[in-house]
Amino acid sequence: MPAPRSEEVFSGPLFRVEVQYWPDRRRDVVRHPGAAAVVALTRGGKVVLVRQLREAVGERLLEIPAGIYDVEGESPEDAARRELEEETGYRAIGLEPLGRIHTSPGFTDEVIHLFLAEAEPGGEPEAGIEVVEVPLQEALRAVDRGEISDAKTALGILLAGRRR
Amino acid sequence: MPAPRSEEVFSGPLFRVEVQYWPDRRRDVVRHPGAAAVVALTRGGKVVLVRQLREAVGERLLEIPAGIYDVEGESPEDAARRELEEETGYRAIGLEPLGRIHTSPGFTDEVIHLFLAEAEPGGEPEAGIEVVEVPLQEALRAVDRGEISDAKTALGILLAGRRR
Repeated sequence: MPAPRSEEVFSGPLFRVEVQYWPDRRRDVVRHPGAAAVVALTRGGKVVLVRQLREAVGERLLEIPAGIYDVEGESPEDAARRELEEETGYRAIGLEPLGRIHTSPGFTDEVIHLFLAEAEPGGEPEAGIEVVEVPLQEALRAVDRGEISDAKTALGILLAGRRR
Repeated sequence: MPAPRSEEVFSGPLFRVEVQYWPDRRRDVVRHPGAAAVVALTRGGKVVLVRQLREAVGERLLEIPAGIYDVEGESPEDAARRELEEETGYRAIGLEPLGRIHTSPGFTDEVIHLFLAEAEPGGEPEAGIEVVEVPLQEALRAVDRGEISDAKTALGILLAGRRR
């Protein structure tokens, strides 16, 4: 159901903002390219997490490796593998889908494809990113206690826990 | 860690867009007022969900009742109670926090406070909103199968399942 009329009011390198005019209401929408994220488990059963500054939030958050779709024609699976390796140095062996999520459908069309993978050590992590390995059971308890605030990360860990 | 320099490039009724200029990079950020959402369980153990058109996504999504903070001075708890009652007609009895989540910290400061409550039938649901009651176990399976795409809803249901 497309909006009867819409107007682009902002366009930046990451997202665009569109104002939609419906017969009885206005909706402001952030058009986002989408992203892929991966719950990577080491052979020892640890989740590979990254801690990095999130400028939008003003905090260093603990998250699963993720990245936006910025390589033309790349599949969600390939993007997940690439981001894992770029950010952490780990390589994904096997990759199973955990589903696709709308991060905040009240104002954005952003979709994140979540995956579960086994991780094998490879190269070096990205500069400015701290890699943190946490046993899955401990990560599950951290989510229960509200210590992992990033939605895709909390959800990915709980979904991985239900499969493992 | 505030950005050295920033500029507001859009301001609408729901959110604002700010461009931050860091020494070596630019960050575009959506400033959002935040929201409260509630996993409400009936005495029969069913989750109270709502299905409504999300213009940003162009689909009718199944979600837990939620709403932005648009009443001056209202607490997250009160906002969760109010939204549950306005959207579904159910009243919350008891309300326990399930944590606060960042919906997409790569580009927005939006935080959602999640709650768990028991729900008691009260008034009528809001016009345009379909109320759907799903047994908790069935809702958990729907999340596992990727049939509930809204992140706060999928996460809220899994967190509720771990407490009940």
